[in-house]
Amino acid sequence: MFFHRQELQHQAKPDKPDAVFARKLQEVLGGQYGEITVAMQYGFQAWNTHLPGKYRDLLYGIGAEEFGHVEILATMIAQLLEKAPVGATEKAIQDDPTVAAIIGGMDVQHAIVAGAGARPVDSNGNPWSGAYVTASGNLLADFTANANAEMQGRLQVARLYHMTDDHGVKDLLGFLLARDTMHQNQWMAAAKELQEEGHELFPVPSNFPLANEDRDVSYQYINFSNGPLASEGSWASGPTPDGKGEFTYVAEPPAGVPMPPPTVPDPRLYGTSPVPNTAEKVTSKIKDVLHKD
Amino acid sequence: MFFHRQELQHQAKPDKPDAVFARKLQEVLGGQYGEITVAMQYGFQAWNTHLPGKYRDLLYGIGAEEFGHVEILATMIAQLLEKAPVGATEKAIQDDPTVAAIIGGMDVQHAIVAGAGARPVDSNGNPWSGAYVTASGNLLADFTANANAEMQGRLQVARLYHMTDDHGVKDLLGFLLARDTMHQNQWMAAAKELQEEGHELFPVPSNFPLANEDRDVSYQYINFSNGPLASEGSWASGPTPDGKGEFTYVAEPPAGVPMPPPTVPDPRLYGTSPVPNTAEKVTSKIKDVLHKD
Amino acid sequence: MFFHRQELQHQAKPDKPDAVFARKLQEVLGGQYGEITVAMQYGFQAWNTHLPGKYRDLLYGIGAEEFGHVEILATMIAQLLEKAPVGATEKAIQDDPTVAAIIGGMDVQHAIVAGAGARPVDSNGNPWSGAYVTASGNLLADFTANANAEMQGRLQVARLYHMTDDHGVKDLLGFLLARDTMHQNQWMAAAKELQEEGHELFPVPSNFPLANEDRDVSYQYINFSNGPLASEGSWASGPTPDGKGEFTYVAEPPAGVPMPPPTVPDPRLYGTSPVPNTAEKVTSKIKDVLHKD
Amino acid sequence: MFFHRQELQHQAKPDKPDAVFARKLQEVLGGQYGEITVAMQYGFQAWNTHLPGKYRDLLYGIGAEEFGHVEILATMIAQLLEKAPVGATEKAIQDDPTVAAIIGGMDVQHAIVAGAGARPVDSNGNPWSGAYVTASGNLLADFTANANAEMQGRLQVARLYHMTDDHGVKDLLGFLLARDTMHQNQWMAAAKELQEEGHELFPVPSNFPLANEDRDVSYQYINFSNGPLASEGSWASGPTPDGKGEFTYVAEPPAGVPMPPPTVPDPRLYGTSPVPNTAEKVTSKIKDVLHKD
Amino acid sequence: MFFHRQELQHQAKPDKPDAVFARKLQEVLGGQYGEITVAMQYGFQAWNTHLPGKYRDLLYGIGAEEFGHVEILATMIAQLLEKAPVGATEKAIQDDPTVAAIIGGMDVQHAIVAGAGARPVDSNGNPWSGAYVTASGNLLADFTANANAEMQGRLQVARLYHMTDDHGVKDLLGFLLARDTMHQNQWMAAAKELQEEGHELFPVPSNFPLANEDRDVSYQYINFSNGPLASEGSWASGPTPDGKGEFTYVAEPPAGVPMPPPTVPDPRLYGTSPVPNTAEKVTSKIKDVLHKD
Amino acid sequence: MFFHRQELQHQAKPDKPDAVFARKLQEVLGGQYGEITVAMQYGFQAWNTHLPGKYRDLLYGIGAEEFGHVEILATMIAQLLEKAPVGATEKAIQDDPTVAAIIGGMDVQHAIVAGAGARPVDSNGNPWSGAYVTASGNLLADFTANANAEMQGRLQVARLYHMTDDHGVKDLLGFLLARDTMHQNQWMAAAKELQEEGHELFPVPSNFPLANEDRDVSYQYINFSNGPLASEGSWASGPTPDGKGEFTYVAEPPAGVPMPPPTVPDPRLYGTSPVPNTAEKVTSKIKDVLHKD
Repeated sequence: MFFHRQELQHQAKPDKPDAVFARKLQEVLGGQYGEITVAMQYGFQAWNTHLPGKYRDLLYGIGAEEFGHVEILATMIAQLLEKAPVGATEKAIQDDPTVAAIIGGMDVQHAIVAGAGARPVDSNGNPWSGAYVTASGNLLADFTANANAEMQGRLQVARLYHMTDDHGVKDLLGFLLARDTMHQNQWMAAAKELQEEGHELFPVPSNFPLANEDRDVSYQYINFSNGPLASEGSWASGPTPDGKGEFTYVAEPPAGVPMPPPTVPDPRLYGTSPVPNTAEKVTSKIKDVLHKD
Repeated sequence: MFFHRQELQHQAKPDKPDAVFARKLQEVLGGQYGEITVAMQYGFQAWNTHLPGKYRDLLYGIGAEEFGHVEILATMIAQLLEKAPVGATEKAIQDDPTVAAIIGGMDVQHAIVAGAGARPVDSNGNPWSGAYVTASGNLLADFTANANAEMQGRLQVARLYHMTDDHGVKDLLGFLLARDTMHQNQWMAAAKELQEEGHELFPVPSNFPLANEDRDVSYQYINFSNGPLASEGSWASGPTPDGKGEFTYVAEPPAGVPMPPPTVPDPRLYGTSPVPNTAEKVTSKIKDVLHKD
Repeated sequence: MFFHRQELQHQAKPDKPDAVFARKLQEVLGGQYGEITVAMQYGFQAWNTHLPGKYRDLLYGIGAEEFGHVEILATMIAQLLEKAPVGATEKAIQDDPTVAAIIGGMDVQHAIVAGAGARPVDSNGNPWSGAYVTASGNLLADFTANANAEMQGRLQVARLYHMTDDHGVKDLLGFLLARDTMHQNQWMAAAKELQEEGHELFPVPSNFPLANEDRDVSYQYINFSNGPLASEGSWASGPTPDGKGEFTYVAEPPAGVPMPPPTVPDPRLYGTSPVPNTAEKVTSKIKDVLHKD
Repeated sequence: MFFHRQELQHQAKPDKPDAVFARKLQEVLGGQYGEITVAMQYGFQAWNTHLPGKYRDLLYGIGAEEFGHVEILATMIAQLLEKAPVGATEKAIQDDPTVAAIIGGMDVQHAIVAGAGARPVDSNGNPWSGAYVTASGNLLADFTANANAEMQGRLQVARLYHMTDDHGVKDLLGFLLARDTMHQNQWMAAAKELQEEGHELFPVPSNFPLANEDRDVSYQYINFSNGPLASEGSWASGPTPDGKGEFTYVAEPPAGVPMPPPTVPDPRLYGTSPVPNTAEKVTSKIKDVLHKD
Repeated sequence: MFFHRQELQHQAKPDKPDAVFARKLQEVLGGQYGEITVAMQYGFQAWNTHLPGKYRDLLYGIGAEEFGHVEILATMIAQLLEKAPVGATEKAIQDDPTVAAIIGGMDVQHAIVAGAGARPVDSNGNPWSGAYVTASGNLLADFTANANAEMQGRLQVARLYHMTDDHGVKDLLGFLLARDTMHQNQWMAAAKELQEEGHELFPVPSNFPLANEDRDVSYQYINFSNGPLASEGSWASGPTPDGKGEFTYVAEPPAGVPMPPPTVPDPRLYGTSPVPNTAEKVTSKIKDVLHKD
Repeated sequence: MFFHRQELQHQAKPDKPDAVFARKLQEVLGGQYGEITVAMQYGFQAWNTHLPGKYRDLLYGIGAEEFGHVEILATMIAQLLEKAPVGATEKAIQDDPTVAAIIGGMDVQHAIVAGAGARPVDSNGNPWSGAYVTASGNLLADFTANANAEMQGRLQVARLYHMTDDHGVKDLLGFLLARDTMHQNQWMAAAKELQEEGHELFPVPSNFPLANEDRDVSYQYINFSNGPLASEGSWASGPTPDGKGEFTYVAEPPAGVPMPPPTVPDPRLYGTSPVPNTAEKVTSKIKDVLHKD
């Protein structure tokens, strides 16, 4: 169960309206790595997890905070839009390049669709998508996904930090940056603990019997481009991070196997055939097929 | 530049047709974490990278291999479909439950749209989306995204491994599992090397001045759910993985700040107002606004 | 701020696994009118509203409940999937039509992607989309949207009720039906109160000056099909619900106005022109244009 | 069958070109609540309806009008674009801020993709989606959806009305506003008539046996936020609009039920397990499972 | 303006219900090349065209027919679903594999969402998308797109023809096949006429001054794969179809140019830099930048 | 297998940065008819083809070139963005209209998400979609799709050519225009050869027995609009391009057939019924149904 309290975890007061920045802020609200994504992702991971106890508590504990971040950003966006220049006409645009620029740079759906409100979309107006969520039931994979989400998220907030000089906005971004710092650290700690306790190891999934994979190529760097320098990395020689092998470098991919011949499916799919394939032949083939179909 | 050779990196010969498994295999071809995703992701990361040398060579070197994996899977799917029961009629379904089940379980667009061919979609028929790709220009974030992609990918292949008893298919899956093992290892090695060489550290982005973030909350676990066990994890006390702080545990979120009052945007957006807002009033307000607009 | 408590508002215990029904249940979790939609919709309406007080409290009060319903359904789906037949091979399908049918009828991503977990998608696997959300800032419009959402939602749950004979599932559906009954009633009451208090009237938006619309056609039923019976409805004669007019019936649409002539845009857009438009002519036109561009 | 006549229901002649407004107008052509949506929605409702007679005639009669509105808007957009500044180069942008603003504010696909033509997308360029359509077979629900669509549509047109000072455009918007006034009124009248004739009542669907729902919570307002004012609304006490109950107010949600324990699905899904789950154990479990699979 | 008549261009009466085939039929209603696509495509081409007269009349004349085809298919689908087995429970599935197969093979949203009605989606439930429409303002390109759409459409109907033995359905498919035959022929005739009248030639757009393109490579077949046989085609030697050149065959792509060095964007984008890029350095760089920003 | 060489087929060096043009260039990289589309389309056609030899070699040979074009455009976009004005603040926008215009006209995700890098999206930020790909297994249909794709692509590049005055960009566009000229020619040649060799004829699919279609209407132009001029085209009289018939012109569509009566599906779908359909009646009907269900 979720309970709501009419407070914000951190204040969200811009110094002044800024419809252009409101649009940009949509990225960290409703983008691929925005707050809706992490809120939903931690939720689904918690609901799908097979582990009771501290890991599940962690997912629930942070997930609910992220829903609060969705709210903070939506609130901030609504305020940045509160005095947006709605009535921009052709004349206004011609008279005042600044008005024109704001109209050009703002998300016009903020005005037309939401009446100066926030929307569940990214900074280009793409609606948030459930396809952004990762919740596989394998916690080492999912915690890595979470660490990535927090890195991408913090990176985007850091970029936004320099696109405004509004102290109220910067104050909120500074708070979000700090929480992303925390969450990056915490998913890395959790991924490490999961391994130390033996719940999961690399390569994920660690309980798949390795004998079933083609071990000959499990640690080969096979170079399909012509840059030789990748051979100098720690991924091309020496022990592998999973502790189970030794990297080798293969400068030229070995010869492959011939492609199988093109398929020849049922004539009733009317693909183009290698030999002239007249309607008469098809009719006759169909009759044959129908006898046994 | 990309060059194509009409060979496959590994053979792709199923023992027999299986339209239901062909559909499932679409997941690792055209799904969120399928081969199209990693091929495009490593490509865009290479094109966007700011680092010449071994890291870029690595991205190019593996990216091109992944395009070859797209091809292997497409080839396998076409063969699994080659003898799919196209002509399934109501009668056939009633007569033979197995035929019925295959029709029910297959991707019907395989027959209707592609004529027994592969498609750039996932196992539920959702078209592959550019929104699956992550390429931020920050390599530590992106290598973490890559490690996650290879984990999710290997996990899905491992699951598929038990959904077939076809030796040809299992042989290919065993190959793909091994390559995913390699790629998991290699992105982890690359992420480590990037830090050791000082290109990037945690928290990402490491060159954002930490003084700009709200350091008071950078290492606090704030518990927004009621499970107490998360306090026992390594993410709730002790040094933080980024080496810059100490985790603390906050069992109850501190009081927040009051929400700002609801916004009151321009009357010409026709939102619902706190006070009765008649057309007459709006007309009058509009007149006022127009004088200064 | 949102707080989470590790309890469910209502129990969610199926009698037995049922992967096919788990897929169907995704509709009311992640479909157009599923619980994610109403949770997010009431949230965005609250964040965008311009009215403090009871209406905003109402939006917050119900919105948080709906996030809890998302959780209940995700929990139920995970349990329905807990013993799903994962390892279905071609042989298993051939041997047991029931297994085959389950594979055919289930969402294969439940197994391959989520490892027997719930996903933010509908019953056909379409990811939940931010485009499902309506939050316009006009509360009479939005409460009508909410009433519709609760009607469509209750309708879908009612349909699902007859697609299972699992007592645990039916028990949960009976609870959701009752809550939808409540929410339908409450949005209708709120829409009525909004009008009685003069915040908003029909037609929405009621504060747009009616004199600006083409009042001649504000109450005409213009019949563009050939069925005469619509003339017998209360929408074709008598007073209009907004209390401002009288319906009239126009059996045949009056003659329209001629279409404007086709446009002739800039030659550099290379559209097909009415007169032969050679490269020479274009080159010459471009030169002319460039002089003034 | 649909027949087309080369006339427009209302004239669509802008005074002058305006590429920025052309983009905004796309919202009411191809947006969530644009004319394509209502045209298709009334069509699918008519094709899916189970009622012959006046209600179906109504759906057909208005649906065809809406296809004509699609045409009017497409025509208007093409004209607004006819003289759009196509050749905007870096130099032109630097020289003339107005040109720059137009480029910034226009939909660049209008020029690049459509050659100064209209497109089936919204004002942010999102393609129109079949997911916008509601056609459930339950007419009271669907008429409520239609009333909402007409309200949102009229609201958007009203907002657009103040974003231009072009008399030709305003003339068309005034016409569309009036038709939306009509259609709002008519769906409300139709919804009322449907109930008076006993086809459908609240709560929708009214023919679902109420005894199957959990009547204890059918009329409880359960407050999941901390705002007390919602208790003062007509939705918190007094008779319910469906005439079948009495609202009650529950200030604090009652204790819920404990969550069920986390699921433990088939080991071959390779989720993370509560206890260390080695490959050896999985192999052994798989052998056990295979004997009975 | 569009007018609707309550008749169908061809009868749409299945012999018996078939929910599985209803799902398949959705492909040619709401798929990439379904009737909604061609109806909307011809409409938008007509609204965007710059040519008055016979070409525009042709687009309008056929476009309206296609809207009628949307209606026929929706009607047929509703009838195929009329007696669909709604109440399929776990028990029913276990008892009767045929019921199970139908549930597995049907579009479950047909029942849950549309109450046995048609939907604007394809055979996998993907909503119809405005992105399927092509309307560029260049008629030779667009007529080629139309010819392709009619070919893909007829191909899909031909495939569907063998997936049913219902005479009523086959009767309708036979009608649609014939209309697709007509429309293929007509777009080919129109494309030819357009060229004969000099409105447009190959290569499209023919009025772009050829001197602006890199004529050295305008007719070279450059072989980027290792199959030598493409050299034997008419596309590798001899005169080109546009009548302006001679094909040549280049067996090996010539050496390319070196890639430009990786970009080094603004430090405030926090990408990973070639040299260790500390926060101190960034802070200092930012100060520098700010002085001139 | 694909191999990568770190060279570009053609140089990609802009004279100077231009973030606005970078956004526009995304259209031909990641739009409906951009390079990703043709690269993937020719790939899937090759993998799905049933013809060995020259046609398959052709598909592979060009497909790999197109992946190289993806790379060239991504490289160009990254360079155009290299010096994009990242730090645009409200003040900067107010001070300098040019900066404002650039911000308004650029794709803000270029900065926020990709850190001045290219993305797999179109010029409005819509992610590339697998739904853009056509690969049906019927080569005459697919080659027509390819010809269309190259026409639309060349048209878009021609339009872009006039939206910049950067010599480096124009140089690259001139190269792409020439390759599109080649590819248009080559797909037309291939389509012709396919017919001459008897693999496929019009109408596609040519091996579907014509007797199964409703030959009475195979060559009728039926005019559903009121423009009489279409009767003058070569598509309204004379021999048909497929050589199998004679066009006729039908000025007025013949009377259709009556629509079938509305469907009456299972009461448990809770649609709105023609007669008042009380819960009591439904309960009783359900009991009846259950006896036989």
